[in-house]
Amino acid sequence: MIGAGQLARMTHQAATDLDIELRVLAASIDDSAVRGGAQYKLGSTSQIADLEAVATGADVVTFDHELVPASNLLILQQHGHILRPGPTALSFAQDKLKARQALSEAGLPTPAFSPVSSISDVNSFAEQYGWPLMLKSRRGGYDGRGVHMVQEMGQLTDLLDEGHLLRKESSENSKNSKNFEFLVEQFVDIASELSILVARTPKGEVAVYPAIQTVQQDGILKFLLMPAHLPSPVLQQAREMAVSIAHYINAIGILAVEMFLAHNGRLLINELALRPHNSGHATIEACNTSQFHQHLRAILDWPLGSTDMRVPAAAMVNLIGGNSSSDLHACLPKALSVPEVAVHLYSKAPRTGRKFGHITATDKSTEDALQKAMQAAECFMR
Amino acid sequence: MIGAGQLARMTHQAATDLDIELRVLAASIDDSAVRGGAQYKLGSTSQIADLEAVATGADVVTFDHELVPASNLLILQQHGHILRPGPTALSFAQDKLKARQALSEAGLPTPAFSPVSSISDVNSFAEQYGWPLMLKSRRGGYDGRGVHMVQEMGQLTDLLDEGHLLRKESSENSKNSKNFEFLVEQFVDIASELSILVARTPKGEVAVYPAIQTVQQDGILKFLLMPAHLPSPVLQQAREMAVSIAHYINAIGILAVEMFLAHNGRLLINELALRPHNSGHATIEACNTSQFHQHLRAILDWPLGSTDMRVPAAAMVNLIGGNSSSDLHACLPKALSVPEVAVHLYSKAPRTGRKFGHITATDKSTEDALQKAMQAAECFMR
Repeated sequence: MIGAGQLARMTHQAATDLDIELRVLAASIDDSAVRGGAQYKLGSTSQIADLEAVATGADVVTFDHELVPASNLLILQQHGHILRPGPTALSFAQDKLKARQALSEAGLPTPAFSPVSSISDVNSFAEQYGWPLMLKSRRGGYDGRGVHMVQEMGQLTDLLDEGHLLRKESSENSKNSKNFEFLVEQFVDIASELSILVARTPKGEVAVYPAIQTVQQDGILKFLLMPAHLPSPVLQQAREMAVSIAHYINAIGILAVEMFLAHNGRLLINELALRPHNSGHATIEACNTSQFHQHLRAILDWPLGSTDMRVPAAAMVNLIGGNSSSDLHACLPKALSVPEVAVHLYSKAPRTGRKFGHITATDKSTEDALQKAMQAAECFMR
Repeated sequence: MIGAGQLARMTHQAATDLDIELRVLAASIDDSAVRGGAQYKLGSTSQIADLEAVATGADVVTFDHELVPASNLLILQQHGHILRPGPTALSFAQDKLKARQALSEAGLPTPAFSPVSSISDVNSFAEQYGWPLMLKSRRGGYDGRGVHMVQEMGQLTDLLDEGHLLRKESSENSKNSKNFEFLVEQFVDIASELSILVARTPKGEVAVYPAIQTVQQDGILKFLLMPAHLPSPVLQQAREMAVSIAHYINAIGILAVEMFLAHNGRLLINELALRPHNSGHATIEACNTSQFHQHLRAILDWPLGSTDMRVPAAAMVNLIGGNSSSDLHACLPKALSVPEVAVHLYSKAPRTGRKFGHITATDKSTEDALQKAMQAAECFMR
């Protein structure tokens, strides 16, 4: 597995059940998965030798993030390594513009979008679709980074003047691009956000999880409810769209499809991730097969497991560092005193805005579950 | 944790959730928990230096088996290490005679028993209670080893002549004991066997799991059903007995109390184990808190978790090596094709009679769950 964050850490726990030897490419021995006991090689995703070192001898290479240069993915594949998902599928998670274009070609609904390479491009788009609009980096953004809601032209020029856009977010291609590598999207009046997780095998077998309702703040997932309480035609459409995408881009492993339900009732596809996903963490306790077990089963071309929930309802709250660094040792017993919660800590020191764990609660209703998860999370979030 | 078998392996998985650093004392780098990624020291439980090496710096020392010499436990404690459970509590799991005597003193029912140190002692017991009788090693037995059902005197002398008893089972004390160190027990006409798991903290807080019905063969647990389908007064009595024992022997962590329900309706206590136990493996999928999480919470004096089941029913089947060594790689996908089963492999090569994994199924009824677990286990057991 390329990457050694919390997704790799939890994948290692699942791999242990199935006696799969998981080796991760880590940047440091302090990485979450290394601290969880996964075998590891230290190195960088930008170094082909490091990627080779972790891939050699493995049956399959998979990923806990999308931040591997596409050229290196191709080299790995040319050297005979089996990448699941493959480079082409991964490119849809790496490049938001490419994902939007593919979805449009497949006839799937997304917010109106356009690539932009100058301020006048943005202006033209705004004339057609109005302000505010969303300005997004094509590459490298996550957890809200690389995404800006822009209210009017003055704010855009401020962002540019402050150097937020050019230097930080298009650095990968800054040598080749005189302007900027962004896309703009129509602002969507969101009623609800949801996530559909699909597992897909190389043979094309798919398994879809019950829809998950997500609540984001500043682009970071704050909490989720499972199953999502939305009208069943909406849920049915969301499932069908997610499965279509999985087949269309030849996803292998877990594909997370983040969607908006607009106030006008339209479902629009937002982002794709081709790996276990934050929105799927409640599957560990709530479903017959966790997304981590399922990802392993899918990439190894084994039969997929049941995605049914074994509890009526679940909620998950991300633990995100607050302004004062919380004392994990003091908070953990407090959290555990709340009944029916499962605490997952990632062996990361809490810093402001940093995800360092999550708490899942299961109960008869998502409301009850959320209340418990929130209560258990409180001490950690101060 | 002293020991690095599958119990330590699964405890490591639970420890990862809670960001607890678990270090194990392993005999080999091939031990199950080491292969699962737990930190480890190599050494022997008979060497106090090895025990010290793993204990030094740990907040608490706990156990995945009972096979640590009592004298070494006392030395560790004298050196300031915190043992949970403590040496006295552990002695009840190490010495069957001591356990029987303590249970009798506490007024709790056990099969009639007597220590024996000669054939004439056995004969006297048989004159009072009849044949067959159970002959048990006081120490060191597990998974049926050290337990013999003896039909008549001739069989006892055969066992002695064949050297099964003296050489193999009382070797620990063979230098000091001219005769043998056994106890005999009245044969119980068993209607059903059950296991009650109790977690207990240093403060004396307890949490009891729903009763588990176990089916043994040749002294090894073959499968279990959870919850046990027995009349509620029996279940109530079993719970009360288990909690009484936990307090009486000052158990800390998980205590597994194995009981017989005799055909005459009497509940009798058979064995005690002061650690996560094979009969509790279904708690991983079936309960709000697995026995492994619970053991860690108990020994760290944290609040205990809910022991309620989050599914209607579960069954677990042990994977035990058959006569032909099964091909795990070929069997695993077959097992995973059965819906709603969770496969746990211990990274142990299958050998005849050796436990190398288990399969838990959850369903609406224990019968349905057992059928699925059996079906998934079939390929492994050939």
